Amino acid sequence: MLGSAARVESVLAREFMVARMSKSNPGNFFEDFRLGQVIQHATPRTITVGDVALYGALYGPRFAVQSSDEFARALGYPRAPVDDLVVFHVVFGKTVPDISLNAVANLGYAECRFLKPVYPGDTLTASSEVIGLKENSSRKTGTVYVRSRGRNQNRQDVLEYVRWVMVRKRDETAPAPSEAVPELHDAVEAAALGGACPILNIGAYDPALAGSAARLYDYPAGERIDHVDGMTVEEAEHQLATRLYQNTARVHFNLFTEAQGRFGKRLIYGGHVISLARALSFNGLANAFHVAGINAGRHVAPLFAGETVFAWSQVLARADLPGRTDVGAMRLRTVATKDKPCAEFPDKSGKDYDPAVILDLDYWVLMPR
Amino acid sequence: MLGSAARVESVLAREFMVARMSKSNPGNFFEDFRLGQVIQHATPRTITVGDVALYGALYGPRFAVQSSDEFARALGYPRAPVDDLVVFHVVFGKTVPDISLNAVANLGYAECRFLKPVYPGDTLTASSEVIGLKENSSRKTGTVYVRSRGRNQNRQDVLEYVRWVMVRKRDETAPAPSEAVPELHDAVEAAALGGACPILNIGAYDPALAGSAARLYDYPAGERIDHVDGMTVEEAEHQLATRLYQNTARVHFNLFTEAQGRFGKRLIYGGHVISLARALSFNGLANAFHVAGINAGRHVAPLFAGETVFAWSQVLARADLPGRTDVGAMRLRTVATKDKPCAEFPDKSGKDYDPAVILDLDYWVLMPR
Amino acid sequence: MLGSAARVESVLAREFMVARMSKSNPGNFFEDFRLGQVIQHATPRTITVGDVALYGALYGPRFAVQSSDEFARALGYPRAPVDDLVVFHVVFGKTVPDISLNAVANLGYAECRFLKPVYPGDTLTASSEVIGLKENSSRKTGTVYVRSRGRNQNRQDVLEYVRWVMVRKRDETAPAPSEAVPELHDAVEAAALGGACPILNIGAYDPALAGSAARLYDYPAGERIDHVDGMTVEEAEHQLATRLYQNTARVHFNLFTEAQGRFGKRLIYGGHVISLARALSFNGLANAFHVAGINAGRHVAPLFAGETVFAWSQVLARADLPGRTDVGAMRLRTVATKDKPCAEFPDKSGKDYDPAVILDLDYWVLMPR
Repeated sequence: MLGSAARVESVLAREFMVARMSKSNPGNFFEDFRLGQVIQHATPRTITVGDVALYGALYGPRFAVQSSDEFARALGYPRAPVDDLVVFHVVFGKTVPDISLNAVANLGYAECRFLKPVYPGDTLTASSEVIGLKENSSRKTGTVYVRSRGRNQNRQDVLEYVRWVMVRKRDETAPAPSEAVPELHDAVEAAALGGACPILNIGAYDPALAGSAARLYDYPAGERIDHVDGMTVEEAEHQLATRLYQNTARVHFNLFTEAQGRFGKRLIYGGHVISLARALSFNGLANAFHVAGINAGRHVAPLFAGETVFAWSQVLARADLPGRTDVGAMRLRTVATKDKPCAEFPDKSGKDYDPAVILDLDYWVLMPR
Repeated sequence: MLGSAARVESVLAREFMVARMSKSNPGNFFEDFRLGQVIQHATPRTITVGDVALYGALYGPRFAVQSSDEFARALGYPRAPVDDLVVFHVVFGKTVPDISLNAVANLGYAECRFLKPVYPGDTLTASSEVIGLKENSSRKTGTVYVRSRGRNQNRQDVLEYVRWVMVRKRDETAPAPSEAVPELHDAVEAAALGGACPILNIGAYDPALAGSAARLYDYPAGERIDHVDGMTVEEAEHQLATRLYQNTARVHFNLFTEAQGRFGKRLIYGGHVISLARALSFNGLANAFHVAGINAGRHVAPLFAGETVFAWSQVLARADLPGRTDVGAMRLRTVATKDKPCAEFPDKSGKDYDPAVILDLDYWVLMPR
Repeated sequence: MLGSAARVESVLAREFMVARMSKSNPGNFFEDFRLGQVIQHATPRTITVGDVALYGALYGPRFAVQSSDEFARALGYPRAPVDDLVVFHVVFGKTVPDISLNAVANLGYAECRFLKPVYPGDTLTASSEVIGLKENSSRKTGTVYVRSRGRNQNRQDVLEYVRWVMVRKRDETAPAPSEAVPELHDAVEAAALGGACPILNIGAYDPALAGSAARLYDYPAGERIDHVDGMTVEEAEHQLATRLYQNTARVHFNLFTEAQGRFGKRLIYGGHVISLARALSFNGLANAFHVAGINAGRHVAPLFAGETVFAWSQVLARADLPGRTDVGAMRLRTVATKDKPCAEFPDKSGKDYDPAVILDLDYWVLMPR
């Protein structure tokens, strides 16, 4: 313990420092990150049925497990779990003020697993560990790799994922850190999936209420599914969504600034596209009720208000989950487009995407076997 | 029970069939319907206070019974019931993927009764029985009549109604079914109303809190009421509402397709107009706290974003409800217009409506006697 | 008690009167108000987590106390309290049909105190006392001063404030009332603050989760803080918000009428600006978790959809609260602008404001000491 005089000086020094600090948050620049650094993010958030209803109004998802307490209970859940992507967006939103306030681009995701179900009333916090740093040759930006975790009020991890972002440097002359690029798995192993899905009484799974009789192995590997419907996005919608997630990234909200920026308009949060594509995918994948993991995701092109999102999916693989027979895992690739219906499955050839493609997502869902 | 080999063949046959099926839902075409067919619709839905809040933000209703748990409890409800029209839209939304995905027009409603109160936490499912079929002389479409029911988690019917839609045929040469047009009542009998309104301790009904001293018999039959206020609708609003109801009808959401369609823009769900008119009707009918039945409804003209909805009502009749003295029934005709205030009560003459009229709704409400 | 015949006549007279009354609400005109009059407003309202979620989606506030039940409980709240401004807007909305339906302008606020915390499940009602009247020399309008109170279901006052509005006269020749202008305090005394903030276990206040280490006395008196971020407002957003508050004022909703009006478009509810500024102020004032009182507020210029709101604040004073050491009070002046970032702190010189300024709010917040 400091002696009394030293403590007073320490308090005064802290006060002087805090008092002199600009009180607003400038965010971190590339040179502020350190390998191994762990950041506890701010803004703990209790998820409620209010959030569930808003998410429903924003995207119109129809998966029965999340829509109905009765349907979920019959299967063995205590009540309808919160949509997996709500959990993702809320956790992601907490990382933004510390990780991507000064980001140029969101480059990718990997190793995302949904670890525990989340129910209305649960409170989520988030933290991130810096697992990689690589300055760019321009010296103006660098890539920051973080592994982020969402945790509930019982200190259980409910979500983990890796993402990497290109972040601006404050000062181009600041020395570059030792380059460290993490080795990331191309995909989550099937055996590591399912923590957020309790063992289900799958005999109680009513296909008529669920909206489809198709089970996991009814989808041959390679099958492509056009999800048909299109959803036009409005400025108010994506702003409501992004604020719901307490995601503060300026490019989504500030037309005054963005009008002079790269696109001349507000950029829609990429996660909004993910949720739209997921909701559209119900048409053809109605029994893919749980997103268990995300292997990779690329926001191929930006989406702006007034554009119409379409989606298609391809079944990449089906897999049993060790030790359980209620559900199995389907590895899906879902591609979302803007202003282009997907009857012809617009895709990439070589490295070049069809210019209408806005999202390419590789993920695992669980379905009844 | 099938023998083991036969069962395996049956499973394989089913799997072959499901695997070869296009996984997305094409909806039913006119020739797919059979008289007497009963369809259990998908997507059970737990209604929550989240939905109640969103409905409030979408329409701004002020009826005290639904606004306040305290006001409702004082009358004898266990808590504030969910707005009757929320129940209607949610049930209606479940019928869309099976009944009206390929509809050309929603032609009418009849015999709608609210049978049991619905509270936050209740879970609704829906089913429909085909009660009429009539192919049109063009052979390209036909009218499908269904009686739909909403049911809660205790297997109690909470809502029933008849609607009929013009549905496209997949194949014009497909044989026409025997014509069957149901005889429908022009109006629900007053004696059949009130199942969704418990017997109330009407002495506890506080007119100051409710917003009006006017009781049922203060409205002479024939009285016309201009509801004065106008509400301009935005694209985001009607999309949020329609998705809240899990109503998937494409014309409401897909500007890319609709831009080439009949109107060149997204058509607003007719139920959104009904709810706007109902909320506007509070101004003049503040004590008409419960919609007990709908006799007929016509979406006379389409509504599009940017247009302003106004409404007026005419009292068609007042009626006691047998065996109860707390409330009575008022038969109302509410007409909604777009971009035309209703001081002059825009209406129809003969068969032709004032071109500003968008909705003509004939329904029963309950009011304190 | 009236004799039976007289009672029948009285009932008939009342019925005749009510029956002949126009059923819609014309609102009060200046000459309808009486000094000392107390008006019980209509529309009791139960606040729920649905409202909390919508408020979050509309403004994106990140104050930890309201965001997390766990954070709030650790401090000593039973659960996360409802945002103070939700309480304000809901109470305010109830006064509109009686006080400001025929208002020309909302002139000011004073003596606003948040008296008791409000939690999801609480039901609010509102009443107003007329404490001042002053006809204008034009004889076409007059200023009405009201002290309004919000009360919960336990008959406890949760909020009180004074506001004054310029209200139209129905009949310019109607006699002017005796002029009575109340003497209002420039500011709520610090000693009168804190009723809505229980004594907190402030040792449990986690600055990392809260988003800032800055405590009350880390902000020198006079410090100015640019809140940096901008939020562009959409028509749907302000309409959703204003309806959420059950605020019926027509100028916010009716483009058909407003297109011919003063501004040619819908005017955004001034309270929406207050909430935007409050949410933006988190950036720099993250630990100002509770709005305890409002001293004065001026809607300096109107805001319209498509415009971007920015904000800055100045610390006017810091004060201990008698008898408590957990939190103290900070008197803040927050200025909001449209389409003008606040790095230069746009302000007024003399009586003239920078034309970009839309709001000037003088209020008290509580912060950990």
